[in-house]
Parts: sequence; structure tokens; C-alpha cells
Amino acid sequence: MAATRKIALDAFGGDHCPFVEVEAAVLAARAGQEVILVGDRARLVPQLALLGISRYDGEDGITVHHASETITMEDTPSKVVRSKPDASMLVCFDLVRRGQAAAVVSAGNSGAMLACGLFRFGRLKGIDRPAIVSSFPRPKGGPCVLIDMGANVECKPINLVQFAVMGAIFSSTAHGKKPRVGVLSNGSEEGKGTDLTRAVHRLLSAHPSPAFSFHGYVEGKDFFKDTVDVIVTDGFTGNVALKVMEGTASGIVGFLRAAVMQTARTKLGGLILRPAFRALGEQLDPDSYGGAPLLGVDGVAIICHGGAGPKALAGGIRIAADYAARDLTPALRAAIGDHRELFAAAKREESPA
Amino acid sequence: MAATRKIALDAFGGDHCPFVEVEAAVLAARAGQEVILVGDRARLVPQLALLGISRYDGEDGITVHHASETITMEDTPSKVVRSKPDASMLVCFDLVRRGQAAAVVSAGNSGAMLACGLFRFGRLKGIDRPAIVSSFPRPKGGPCVLIDMGANVECKPINLVQFAVMGAIFSSTAHGKKPRVGVLSNGSEEGKGTDLTRAVHRLLSAHPSPAFSFHGYVEGKDFFKDTVDVIVTDGFTGNVALKVMEGTASGIVGFLRAAVMQTARTKLGGLILRPAFRALGEQLDPDSYGGAPLLGVDGVAIICHGGAGPKALAGGIRIAADYAARDLTPALRAAIGDHRELFAAAKREESPA
Repeated sequence: MAATRKIALDAFGGDHCPFVEVEAAVLAARAGQEVILVGDRARLVPQLALLGISRYDGEDGITVHHASETITMEDTPSKVVRSKPDASMLVCFDLVRRGQAAAVVSAGNSGAMLACGLFRFGRLKGIDRPAIVSSFPRPKGGPCVLIDMGANVECKPINLVQFAVMGAIFSSTAHGKKPRVGVLSNGSEEGKGTDLTRAVHRLLSAHPSPAFSFHGYVEGKDFFKDTVDVIVTDGFTGNVALKVMEGTASGIVGFLRAAVMQTARTKLGGLILRPAFRALGEQLDPDSYGGAPLLGVDGVAIICHGGAGPKALAGGIRIAADYAARDLTPALRAAIGDHRELFAAAKREESPA
Repeated sequence: MAATRKIALDAFGGDHCPFVEVEAAVLAARAGQEVILVGDRARLVPQLALLGISRYDGEDGITVHHASETITMEDTPSKVVRSKPDASMLVCFDLVRRGQAAAVVSAGNSGAMLACGLFRFGRLKGIDRPAIVSSFPRPKGGPCVLIDMGANVECKPINLVQFAVMGAIFSSTAHGKKPRVGVLSNGSEEGKGTDLTRAVHRLLSAHPSPAFSFHGYVEGKDFFKDTVDVIVTDGFTGNVALKVMEGTASGIVGFLRAAVMQTARTKLGGLILRPAFRALGEQLDPDSYGGAPLLGVDGVAIICHGGAGPKALAGGIRIAADYAARDLTPALRAAIGDHRELFAAAKREESPA
């Protein structure tokens, strides 16, 4: 879409904006990545000054681009595009559309990101609804992809079927092998699940894909096993699952801390293992994963965790630059063509009761 | 319902039946709990003989009660009651109905447990659909209750509202304080969630309960925080969430093992911490929680994990005996009366689109 390598960063997205965003921009700029910080100039300039940055005309890697409005978590995503035309998030998408930036990064309202993506980038032809894809680490088998993790709370079979194809292309582009795809359910037997998951199971079983092998249903207990490479679900379940993973991980750290602090002996063990624990914590930290791409729109947009710190957000900027350079779009377009029959069959299915 | 203290154990429920069930019955009997093992006598008797048990007429704490059929995970729950009248699970419910046992325990098909409960025990008057309630440990704040974790895959507002009331009574009976109740969603803001969760949020906000305080939405990341005592959700999401917790816990154990095995130094730390790790593993082990009661039917039925080992299943038997002795039913009946207005308002809500 653009020859520029600059990344448009929504400076008023995350829970701790704009402090975290400004610091992330500085980190990225120091690492050689040009960033356009988008938001209220009067609030951004003093914040940059605190970090010793007095030029923001792009010369030192940072440009401030003014936007007078802000999208909050309370905003209704479908309305923001009309009601807040000068919102920092929306202006980021405008910059990409005009060729002034290569990709958007925001830690803001993910529903609003979806709406901005739809209205400013447009859907990829043949995709009904874009989705947010997230990856998480596993002890064996490399990262696993979860799609959708929040963009589409209520889904039809066609949506999940398209998520399967997009997730598979995303996984194979990143990891270079034909992925195994599973549909998240409450049991592994075909009869389990909801009307929605059963329809998707039927469709993916009946239409073998050139892009992935269909495994069938997977359960939450399969997340960290090397069972599949892509887990397909609606945005409500995906979001709950992702946050349960995060919550469980930090819960276990709490239990572990209590176990280590019990006696002098266990404290010694804890002391010895401290570097290993720290490395483990970094490996599991959702922050280290940086950002989740919005797939199915005609442009690169990365959604970061609302609570992301500066390092995580800088990671999101790096991922955005990487995706913009690689451009998944041609592979996605080809896959959409390859799955025409599957998509047509899915559209013939009724939406779940 | 019955003066007997005997527990009816479905000997053909779990993934490793009847070996695990027979061993669990022997463990329970040794601990002084009388058990009726229900299932194919010709397969149970030799299995008991292998464990040195030659009397199964109740004298040594174990009775074998023959049942010729078995319910599998592939069976359609709504059909088993008619199609398999002599199924071991169903016969357990018959024993309780006839006053020959105090409660049912099974590690089998949870949908079939629900169907058997509905057809043999009947619903508590005023409850539309029973639910399965599960508890999990937290570093602080005591166990948290999750309802429904699998019985009702597709729910209406009235169902979740009733789950909130039943979960609250279950929690307060177990822990003696007025519980805080939250509805599981994909964000904490009121506008988040599905049509279903928004309707439930509205209803619980508009009708303050004498039995619990309503917190609003909770997310997966709140599971291990001391935010609420009861988490309300539909059976699909609840089942996925519970299994993601299990999967994440064992995934982290995998990461931890790899971290400990890295160097001689970390191995030493691991050796010192081994007893603490083991205690932690037991604390987190879903097996140690033994079983999940089916709430909203007029009788005690405990659903155990399909993969439960003998110790876990014996734990389920102990829990069943405990619940049968305590009998939640009067407290539930009183609560149903106290929430008539809330339930009436919920029934006026449309079912989600």
C-alpha cells in the first residue's frame, strides 16, 4: 500500500496512555524504526520532553501527528468511525490509507480497531469478517495460533470457516509448514459443541483444504499440547480463553511464590532458580508477544494488549513493520480463491439458532 | 431422600473404567464409606478379585449391583434415558430414587448425567435447567466457584440468572460468607459481551439479591484474583475455560521442568524445591477437587473428571456423602423463593438472537 516504512502509533489507545505509547515510540526510534505518534499534540510534546526528545518532525525517528479525539473502551465500535472522525486511532488508519504510514499499531478498543479496519482499509475480497489472531508459546511444537480472539463476538459458520483459512495462512507463513487446524469445543466427539461449532466441524470435514489439515475438535486442555497449530473459535470464547491462560499463568506464579517462601530450605531453592524463573516469566509474558494482527482487511493493523508496557508496545511496532514488509495479503488472496467451494457451502448453512 | 449413607458409583463412567472405579470403591470402603458399584457384574467381580475383594454383598463396604448397559461419550444425552434403561449411570439414579443409595457418582458423559438427573430426580421447582458447578483453588481468597461448566451448552438469560443464585447458595453454604458474583465476559465494560451476557448483566444489576452481591463482568484474567467468589457462564464457555485452566497449568509445569533441567545449578534448585513443587502440583491437581455437583435437581449427583484416577474418584465419593449429609436442597428452595421477581423478569427477556 505504501513505500514508507513508518508505523502509525495510536498514542491514546492503552490503559496507561499516552505515557506508555510515548516511551514505546522512543524505544522503537532508538532501534531504528520510524514512528508517527498520533494524538493530542499538546499532551504528547511535554511527555516527549520528559524523555529528552525535543524534535518530533521525523528527524530523530519520531513524528507527532495531531488528532483531537480519543476512542475509549466505552465507545461503541460501530459508531466511532462517524462520531469521532478525528480520533487518534482512526487517524492512524487514514495515514496508512494515504500512503504516509505502512501499518497501524494501537493498544485501544479492539472492536473499534475492527471498525476502523473495515471502514478505512476495507475487507479483503471474499472475507466476510476480519478476525484478530494471537499466538502463544508452548513447551513443544512452537507457538500456537488462536483466531478469533476478540473481534467477532457473535459468529456464523462462514466466519469460523474463514478464520480457519486465515489462521492457517498466518501460521504457515510464520512457521513454514502445513498447519493442523482444530475447532475449539467442549469435548472432542463430533456431537459436542454448539450448533455453530458442529456446522463448522461438518464443513471443514467435508471440504479438505490444500492449506491445512483439519484435526477436528480441540479442548482447552490441548492448548499447550502439540495437537494442532491453529485453534479456531468465535471472538467471545477466544477472548475468554486467552485471558484465562493469562490469569492461570499469573495464578500459578502466585502459588509458586507461596511454595518457595515456605521454609529456609525452599527459599534457598528459589534463590538458586531465580534466573530460570525470570527467564520463564519472560517466555510466558503476554507482553513479549507484542501484538495481534487484524487479518482479513486490506492493510496491516496490530492490536496490542490494553495493559501493554512500553517494551510490549515497542514489540508491537516491530511486528507491524515486519508484517508490512512481508505482506501476507497475496497469500491470503490466493487462499480465498482456493477455498471458494468451502465458503459457498458455509454460506448455505443457516446461522445458529 | 434416603436414610441410607451408601453411595451409588457408576462403574462404567470414566475413560479407564471399570479399573479406576473398582479401585476407587475399594479406597472409599477402606475409609469407611459404603459404596454400591453399579455395572456389568461379570466384569466387576474379577476386577475386585484382583484387588483381593471376594465379598461384594455389602459386608465389607462394597456391594455390586448389576446393570447390563453402558453410556458412552458418543451417546446423545437426551436419548439415553429411553434407549438404555439398564445403563449403569441410570441405574445409579434409580437406586437413589428408591432410597437404596444417598447419592450418585459418575465420571461419565456429563450431558447424560444431566438427562438422568432431570428424568429420575426431577428439577427443583422453580429451576428451569440444572447446572454443573466446579470449584478451583486460588492463591488468595479461597476456592472460586464456576457455574455452569458443561451441562447447558446453549443458554438463555433465565438460565444464567438461576446459575447465579444456585452458585451463590453453593458458595455460601461451603464458605459461610455472602459471595460476590460475576458474569464471565470478554471485557469488564457493560457494553461488552454477547446479547446473552448483556441481558444477564442488566437483570442482576436491576434486582439486588439477598444472597449475593453482584460485581458485574469478570474476565479470564480475574479467575485467580480475589475479585469474585462465583463466576457465572454458559456450559460451553465454562467447559472451555475450565479446560484451558487445566491445560495452562500443565503447560506451565512443562515449561518449569525445562527451566529446571537446563544446568547443574538449576537442577540442584529443582531438587531442593521438589517437595514444594509436589505439594503445589497436588494443590492444583483437578483430581484433588474430586467432583462437580449437579445443582438444580432434587437429589445429589456428583460428576467426576473423565480422566479421574482412583484417588480423585474416591474424593468424589467423599464429596457425594458430604453433600448428601448436608443437603443443600432446603437452602436452594428458600433462595428460589427469594428470587421470584428476578426470575420473572428474566423470563420476560427474549432469548438471544
